[in-house]
Amino acid sequence: MKKIILITGIAGMVGSNLLEKIINSKNLIIGIDNFALGDKKFLKKFNNKKNFFFLKKNLDREITDKKLEQIIKKNYLSEIWLLAANSDIQKGIKDYKVDLNNTLLTTINSLEFLKNFLQKDTKIIFTSSSAVYGQQIERISEKLKNKNPLSNYGIMKLQSEIYLKYYSKINNINTLIFRFPNVVGPNLTHGLVFDMKKKITLKNNNYIQVLGNGEQQKPYSHVSEILDCIFFLKKRKYKNKINYFNIGNNDIGLKVKEIVKKMVTKFKSKKKILFEKKNIGWVGDIPKYSYSTKKINKLGFKFKMNSNKSINKIINEIL
Amino acid sequence: MKKIILITGIAGMVGSNLLEKIINSKNLIIGIDNFALGDKKFLKKFNNKKNFFFLKKNLDREITDKKLEQIIKKNYLSEIWLLAANSDIQKGIKDYKVDLNNTLLTTINSLEFLKNFLQKDTKIIFTSSSAVYGQQIERISEKLKNKNPLSNYGIMKLQSEIYLKYYSKINNINTLIFRFPNVVGPNLTHGLVFDMKKKITLKNNNYIQVLGNGEQQKPYSHVSEILDCIFFLKKRKYKNKINYFNIGNNDIGLKVKEIVKKMVTKFKSKKKILFEKKNIGWVGDIPKYSYSTKKINKLGFKFKMNSNKSINKIINEIL
Repeated sequence: MKKIILITGIAGMVGSNLLEKIINSKNLIIGIDNFALGDKKFLKKFNNKKNFFFLKKNLDREITDKKLEQIIKKNYLSEIWLLAANSDIQKGIKDYKVDLNNTLLTTINSLEFLKNFLQKDTKIIFTSSSAVYGQQIERISEKLKNKNPLSNYGIMKLQSEIYLKYYSKINNINTLIFRFPNVVGPNLTHGLVFDMKKKITLKNNNYIQVLGNGEQQKPYSHVSEILDCIFFLKKRKYKNKINYFNIGNNDIGLKVKEIVKKMVTKFKSKKKILFEKKNIGWVGDIPKYSYSTKKINKLGFKFKMNSNKSINKIINEIL
Repeated sequence: MKKIILITGIAGMVGSNLLEKIINSKNLIIGIDNFALGDKKFLKKFNNKKNFFFLKKNLDREITDKKLEQIIKKNYLSEIWLLAANSDIQKGIKDYKVDLNNTLLTTINSLEFLKNFLQKDTKIIFTSSSAVYGQQIERISEKLKNKNPLSNYGIMKLQSEIYLKYYSKINNINTLIFRFPNVVGPNLTHGLVFDMKKKITLKNNNYIQVLGNGEQQKPYSHVSEILDCIFFLKKRKYKNKINYFNIGNNDIGLKVKEIVKKMVTKFKSKKKILFEKKNIGWVGDIPKYSYSTKKINKLGFKFKMNSNKSINKIINEIL
């Protein structure tokens, strides 16, 4: 009997970096993805690992899978990482079904499927987002009451959190909710750095179109440190069944135009950079926010890389 | 061009009583139902009414309907009554998909379909439930922070409310949320009085099985007064885009065993009444609660019928 670490959305950026981090443990790792946003190639090097079991599956409907049930029953469900989500905010704004299906329903259906296999000390790790807070003037702490999500993504992450709140209570299960800032790292699937690389390396155009006027300013953290932080925090015991954490550095971030310039320089691109006039990149974009990270700092974790270092690191990684 | 009153779940108890109340107005009434819980026969007497347009439709998926779109476009969408919901709490506890599909997804898909037809003063009326508060010791006011829903129904009504909160904000639309107590009235589709009538009139058994020990005590209001209250409150203007109301009387209610005895007496049944030992009727049942109705009282509405009168009225109606 082995301890199971079950991960939904394993083929995404966070999932594949997490897998890298734990593949050499003694645990049995079950990864699920439908490659909606994640990529098969991120998992390629793990295919021959005996403690890794991968399942291609849509999670936006009721889950039935005899083989999966058997594996879970024969072992011990230790951790559930619910990473499956749309996470491409713009995509979800064009079509409400994207975040409804891929962000909320993946979460609800995974939880309902796993309900019968929960052990006394099973831990649920849910990756949420700064998008649940939406537009805020002040530095954001976890206690903030007037949440103001502006995107379907933010609303559906918030709905998922609320589902988890009552699920943890009713099933007496420990849940950790991590609200991510902008996260960068190897195996990007979307976002500014991903888009810019695409536009810079695209052959048939001689300009780079930036969404918004470039003044949008957001904090960035690197996935390696995000995972370090989660591992640090998940070891602790907590009084409450459900706990919420802002994770990431607490600087005010980098401006979009600064990141674009960095990338153009590093990639030695001579393309012209075009900005738009509007101060947001898309409807529902939050052009500026910053975190209070007092809670995680008090618990003993402090991010070492600020936004600038995190961005420099990912640019070097994708060069 | 006519004012449209659009009602989802029109074939349920609340929907059909609402239709009765407004059928002789000058408005165009669009009613939608899939008869999952509602009943075709409740609509029969309205079939020949020229200002009533009925559509049989599932609302738990993306809604597309050219004819419906045309009717709405040619007229003026004045009121949206979102009544479609599972509302049979026990059913939703056995299978999480019942409330996910019929309570939450009906609401989200209806709202997303109607988004393109909203007018400046379109009003949304959403029927929520005391189930969103869940188990509470104190008399419940609308301001209560620690909500504690125990049923999928309660959780999905709460999720619907939260979806509406951000929908109203983003679309700048007025929404009224009415949290119902136990409601009785003509055209019952489920609930204690409905069940008891079925068990009393069933031919081949000589006992009446009650769920729980009969000590569960809840407030009941009659649908006629519930609708009077909504009509009273929807005429007012409100400062906030979204407003929440406990509606119903504020007594401590009747015990299940009292209602059962009343019914057995009225129906002159000689069957034996069997109680269970447990103090709840089903997992997720809230055996006792009562409302603070200060908010609606201050605005000028007071329920005239207490639980006893409401129950007497429905028993006489179904005799």
